[in-house]
Amino acid sequence: MLEKTEHMIMLKDFYGPLLTSKQQDLMSLYYEDDWSLSEIAENRGTSRQAVYDVLKRAETALQEYEERLGLVDKFAITRRGLEEVYALLKQQGCLGQNEIEKARKILRNIMESV
Amino acid sequence: MLEKTEHMIMLKDFYGPLLTSKQQDLMSLYYEDDWSLSEIAENRGTSRQAVYDVLKRAETALQEYEERLGLVDKFAITRRGLEEVYALLKQQGCLGQNEIEKARKILRNIMESV
Repeated sequence: MLEKTEHMIMLKDFYGPLLTSKQQDLMSLYYEDDWSLSEIAENRGTSRQAVYDVLKRAETALQEYEERLGLVDKFAITRRGLEEVYALLKQQGCLGQNEIEKARKILRNIMESV
Repeated sequence: MLEKTEHMIMLKDFYGPLLTSKQQDLMSLYYEDDWSLSEIAENRGTSRQAVYDVLKRAETALQEYEERLGLVDKFAITRRGLEEVYALLKQQGCLGQNEIEKARKILRNIMESV
């Protein structure tokens, strides 16, 4: 469940502006602020079922954007690569040829994949 | 004109899969293969005006996606940063603390912006 929440927040970070403002509003309350369906329904003056339907449609839309564009996946690869290079550059003292070559290889991979 | 073409190809690289297959087809012929409107019309058995209309709608859609998501812009920033770090790591011999710190700063900036 937690993993699904994190994934949905990532999807919303990328594609959220393509959702309707109502979908964005309810997604924020549910996934980012961790409100329950009933709490959202009460606060927004609607039914629990209506909230559920809006969220379900929003989730499906976000998943379809990711299936087509794959940008969240791409971003995760870039992120991992950047962290690896950053870690290589962490040491004190001068950086030897081996590490430099390793860092350059990771950077090339990122540039080819983005 | 050339600049517009490059920009459109970038937009299509990111958001192309959100267009209809017809829009994608005509965009490829016009922007990537450099066919004229008349050539496309003749080859696809339609009118020059119809081709123009499809392209216009596709361009507008791509621009709207970029206005909402801004991923092409974001990508350009990342790309520039990666190239800077790559250039810093180009030298032969060991890499000194100054360059390492410069590279780490650029990487931090990228990671904060993506």
